[in-house]
Amino acid sequence: MPGIDSSDRDALIETAHEMADAARAAVLPYFRAWNLEVENKDPNGFDPVTAADRTAERAIRGVLAARRPDDGFLGEEHGTVKGSSGLIWVVDPIDGTRGFISGTPTWGVLIAVGAGNGPLFGLIDQPYIRERFVGGFSEAYTVGPQGRIPLRCRGARELSAATVLTTFPEVGTDAEAKAFHSLASRCNLTRYGMDCYAYALLAAGQIDLVVEAGLEPYDIQAPMAVVEAAGGIVTDWRGGSAHMGGQVLAAANPRIHSAAIEALNS
Amino acid sequence: MPGIDSSDRDALIETAHEMADAARAAVLPYFRAWNLEVENKDPNGFDPVTAADRTAERAIRGVLAARRPDDGFLGEEHGTVKGSSGLIWVVDPIDGTRGFISGTPTWGVLIAVGAGNGPLFGLIDQPYIRERFVGGFSEAYTVGPQGRIPLRCRGARELSAATVLTTFPEVGTDAEAKAFHSLASRCNLTRYGMDCYAYALLAAGQIDLVVEAGLEPYDIQAPMAVVEAAGGIVTDWRGGSAHMGGQVLAAANPRIHSAAIEALNS
Repeated sequence: MPGIDSSDRDALIETAHEMADAARAAVLPYFRAWNLEVENKDPNGFDPVTAADRTAERAIRGVLAARRPDDGFLGEEHGTVKGSSGLIWVVDPIDGTRGFISGTPTWGVLIAVGAGNGPLFGLIDQPYIRERFVGGFSEAYTVGPQGRIPLRCRGARELSAATVLTTFPEVGTDAEAKAFHSLASRCNLTRYGMDCYAYALLAAGQIDLVVEAGLEPYDIQAPMAVVEAAGGIVTDWRGGSAHMGGQVLAAANPRIHSAAIEALNS
Repeated sequence: MPGIDSSDRDALIETAHEMADAARAAVLPYFRAWNLEVENKDPNGFDPVTAADRTAERAIRGVLAARRPDDGFLGEEHGTVKGSSGLIWVVDPIDGTRGFISGTPTWGVLIAVGAGNGPLFGLIDQPYIRERFVGGFSEAYTVGPQGRIPLRCRGARELSAATVLTTFPEVGTDAEAKAFHSLASRCNLTRYGMDCYAYALLAAGQIDLVVEAGLEPYDIQAPMAVVEAAGGIVTDWRGGSAHMGGQVLAAANPRIHSAAIEALNS
């Protein structure tokens, strides 16, 4: 991949926002619709997908085809396209489909771009609230009901004063759940079921930790870009790289990251 | 209490909206503020309260004092005032303080009015999203990002196709948690941590059941008004009255209500 100069950056940022705008327009007519049909992708469980997921991913791919046909693409619904530019877009058109089909406003559109070894830039968009969390290329901010606000993770505090968010008890193996509870039991407050919105709140300085398991690359790359740009740390549960998914720990600062790693592995 | 004619109704409805507007203005400056201070009301656990709770309740009481000084008042933060009109306002200035202090947009301002035996009218307001769910006096609607939309609970479906929302695992005794899981294990989808927003989604036809325990009157009366006005049913776990709180079961329709009662008590 060639080096990325400032005009490349601007083009990538513009493309990401155009994708998010297109996805927002595509998905909102389905949200809380009476006639929303839900399919199950998982024969052994419940992994819901809707026409909204597919329509949003198509809208995003349409933008990519028009603006940057040489870039690669990895999406949840339509698989991978190898590009020739060395850049790849990693997209989850609706992260939190369970929340989406329940009407909660904490699902999001996840869009990230990178060179194959993690995100350079990403965003989390919540279409219903009209709220976007953006991070990368030395910027981190949110635009929403209260205007444009910089994103910055909060400073260090003890685990005993910390708030942890998670998708448990819905995800993970029994061993993973046990490790999670070993950590959560040392924290002040645990909140559930926020999907990608949890990472947005970490970047916004509202919470201290997000702990998840069983993630795919498209679940984590956009949140990772936002959290890292806001000063946070995103790794796996042992401190290794997390951009391919699996067990993910996102932390507001190095001190609480270390404490959480210790609690997860104790 | 004298009978309520249509001009009384209009005055009550106007007062409720004025209270919600005042609370919204009072509370938003605290939401996601960097310097939000959290106190713990529970010496044996974590029952957070913030200046936002107190400021919002003061704003609501200010509206009541100005418009309807003879009505009674029951609020979470400042206790009970007996009135002389026979009507009482039952208010939780911030339902879901744990969510509020985590930055999630699923807490709400709860305002209900009744004659002491349950709500006649109530509303759930989500200030950040600028979304209000209203029910009573033969009306049920929401006003929010998608405009004004009627509220109507969804039709009957089997438990195995149902979505249940709850504040478990954060609330309830071990026996209550066991009963809840007996029900949840028969449902298709369980979602956690939505606080009062769960009832709003029930009224909006998005989910089938809300199950909770350990509620106070001010936690349930406004949600009850909204859900009942949208065609739903709110009782305790045995089918008795729920307006004083405790164990609460809210259901979209009579058939799933019966099935949930059976599962909770099996």
